[in-house]
Formats: sequence, structure tokens, C-alpha cells
Amino acid sequence: MPSEAQLDRIEIVLVSPRNPLNIGAVARAMANFGFEHLSVVAPYEAHWREAKSAVGAEDLLQNAKRAERVAEAVGKCTLVIGTGTLERRRPEQCVVLLPELAPLVREELERGGRVAVVFGPEKHGLTREDLSLCHLLVEIPTDKRQPSMNLGQAVAVCLYELSARIVTGAPEPAESDAPKPADSSQLELLARVIEETITAANYSPAEMNAANRHDLRLLLRRLALEERDARRMVGFFRRILWRLRR
Amino acid sequence: MPSEAQLDRIEIVLVSPRNPLNIGAVARAMANFGFEHLSVVAPYEAHWREAKSAVGAEDLLQNAKRAERVAEAVGKCTLVIGTGTLERRRPEQCVVLLPELAPLVREELERGGRVAVVFGPEKHGLTREDLSLCHLLVEIPTDKRQPSMNLGQAVAVCLYELSARIVTGAPEPAESDAPKPADSSQLELLARVIEETITAANYSPAEMNAANRHDLRLLLRRLALEERDARRMVGFFRRILWRLRR
Repeated sequence: MPSEAQLDRIEIVLVSPRNPLNIGAVARAMANFGFEHLSVVAPYEAHWREAKSAVGAEDLLQNAKRAERVAEAVGKCTLVIGTGTLERRRPEQCVVLLPELAPLVREELERGGRVAVVFGPEKHGLTREDLSLCHLLVEIPTDKRQPSMNLGQAVAVCLYELSARIVTGAPEPAESDAPKPADSSQLELLARVIEETITAANYSPAEMNAANRHDLRLLLRRLALEERDARRMVGFFRRILWRLRR
Repeated sequence: MPSEAQLDRIEIVLVSPRNPLNIGAVARAMANFGFEHLSVVAPYEAHWREAKSAVGAEDLLQNAKRAERVAEAVGKCTLVIGTGTLERRRPEQCVVLLPELAPLVREELERGGRVAVVFGPEKHGLTREDLSLCHLLVEIPTDKRQPSMNLGQAVAVCLYELSARIVTGAPEPAESDAPKPADSSQLELLARVIEETITAANYSPAEMNAANRHDLRLLLRRLALEERDARRMVGFFRRILWRLRR
């Protein structure tokens, strides 16, 4: 098992789960594999915290965070990983198979980052907008004839893989001089300021706004920005915006 | 994914499952990871084949074999792997952690063997007698504070690990001259004949019979007998038995 301090910087995010039994099953698997931080985004049922299937994980479920949007749930994370079978949509980010994921997560933890693994609703998986908040996508290798997994089982498989193969040994990062990666909330702020700038500059017709926003999010996540880059760019675009609006 | 022909020689055995929803979840995970052969030993509920949770695995569940005893379900298998958290009992066989299991299974498949992975009932896991039919035990590495997994999730994790890490490449074994390993039914026949011989020879008091039987089973599985060894030994002990009874 990896060190507790490492797993402590991994968040599990469930987006709009319908069945409380699945939420409980997710909590149980988290307890089995030593994960503690669960966020539930816009749950469908009001009484999800009472799910009986959370055997041995009742406290974890009581302490889960509730968020209205994915962006809010992953705000502090520097590596956001989307999950799902990618049969129906063309992925717009890098796709990694689950057996190859652990080294990437380990690297992020070792440089002091915070990781989110995001699971979509039972039937349809993550939306294109949810996915645009992800730095990379992970796919569980399944049989092509029956790729659709039960949510609780998919989460169990992912958490098993991460807990078994994020090898310990790396000391917890000290407060070092190494630059910190920008987290998701900083990227969202930057995206918003750039979008306002684009609009103020009349860059393209209003009907293109949604598509531009989507492409911009993906682009910003490809850049691997540091915190100070993001801060600098926000300042830079705010200045442009101010000039444009004068 | 491994070749279909390889997974075709792996059997999943559920012993006395109580909740049909779990049986269905197991079937679904099997379909997800390309496994086909399910045996259910002494199920608790009569209508387990109709479990709604077997999404996309309805046929697999209809075709599952029903057995009364574990020995019957694993009869044709040459490597029987027991599962469970081993907190409460001292294991009497070799215990392997799940992340290290795939090479052992691959080796068995490459020499033409047949593998069973056996899961116990929800609450208590496999009994000591069930375990005595196993060549080795596998343990899923879990958090010590919450080791008990949901059955459907435990099966999903095991099947994911095997399907992701039994690397293909080995050609299907041709009908070779290499000696075949003895399967479980041959080991059971041999154990029975030896037991009769022990009894006929008045080796130990009757109250020791159960303990002797148990130790004998474990011993025979440690020997890695070939088919011809088992046949020869059965003949040998039958001869002794015949002499003893004259």
C-alpha cells in the first residue's frame, strides 16, 4: 500500500450518480483501499448519505463533500483524470489505459500535486463539458462486446490499481523552491478572463462562444502551466481587458 | 487483453452466495473482462439466474453451472486459487498478493492447465474445507482498518488484474508430449483411496479421520503431481487396500 499521506492527496469525484447503492459501494471500495476524500456532484437522490451499501465506510460517506459543479469539486487539484469507456466519443485529450496510470499519478504526487479521479453517471458517463476539465482520460481495458461496467465495480478496479501500484518510497515533498503546478480553480479563472477578453475584442460571433470556451479549457490543460504562469497570464489578460473596455 | 482461448480455461466459482444481486454483479464483471465460465456452488436463493444486476451478462448467467460441492466445480482444474481476506485464519497454503498472481496463472495456462478462482460466501468467506481444495490462496491488498470487500467488487478487481496482466503471446499449447498436471478430480480420487487405505490399516483412531483427510488434501496439492503420477499412485494404493481387506 502507498503511504497514507500520498493517498490523502487523491480525491474521488462522482458526478450525478443516480443510485445511492452505487454511492455506498464507492465509499466501501474507498475504505477498502485507503482513500478518504469523496466529492459527490449534483446527486440525484436526496438521501445518498444513508446508503446501506457503504459497509464500514459510513463516516467516509458522512464526511463526503457535496458540490454543484465538477469545476468546484476539482478546484484544488492539479491533475484531473476522467474515466469512462470512450467508445461513443472521440477523446480530445490523451487517453491512458488503467494499467499504465499509476506512474503518472505517482509523479504528480511526488511533485506535491493533488489528483482527482472523476467518474460520470451510471448510464451515460461524463459529458463533453465534464471531460473538458480533465487533463487526461483513463480507460479500463474491457471486452469490446461488453464494455459497460457497474459504477461501484469500475471505481473498485481503479482504486485497487492505484493503491497497489503507487509504490511508496518517495518522501513527502518538503516546502521546496520547485514551482507549483496551477490547480484547476486557477485554470478556470484564467479561462474566464481570456474568454471575457475574446468577447470584448469581438474575436468571433456569439454563437461560437461555447465552442471557443471548450477548446480554450482543453488548451490550457495541455500547457502544464505553473501557478505563477497562471497568475501572470491572468494579470496580462485583465490588463488587455481593461484597455479594451475603456 | 489476453487471448480468448486463454481466458476460456479459467473458471470462476462462487461458493454459497446469499445475494443474487452479487451473483449478477459477478456475471457482469466476467462479461466486462472476457471470462465465460461461471460455476455456482450451493446457492442460497433459488432464482439466482434471474438476477437483474447481470447487465449484459444474462446468457452467461443462464449458462452457469450449478454444483453441490466445490470439489465438483473445480474437478477439471489443475490450479485452484482460493480468495479472501486471511485475517481470521492461519493460511495452510502459499499466499500470493493479487498484483503478483498473473504470472502464476499464465504459466499454468501455458502448460495447458485449467485454472479456477474460487470466491466464498459474502459474510464468512471460504471454509477450511473449501480452502483445502486450493493449491494456493490469493489476497487482495486492502487497508487493514477495512479489509472486507463487497463480493461483486472483489471479483471485478481480481478479473481486471488477470485480464490486464496475463500477457498474450504464448501460442495455444499443441498436443505435446509434456506431462499433463493432475486435475482436482484426480487428486480427490487419490485422496479417497489413500484415506480408505489408512482406515483399513487402522492407522489412527476414527476421531482423527477428518484431520487426516484435511492434511492429506493439502499435502497432495503441494506435490504438483502429474496425471500419470496420480494414476500410478491410485493403482498402488488400491492394490494395498485389496491386500489389507483380504
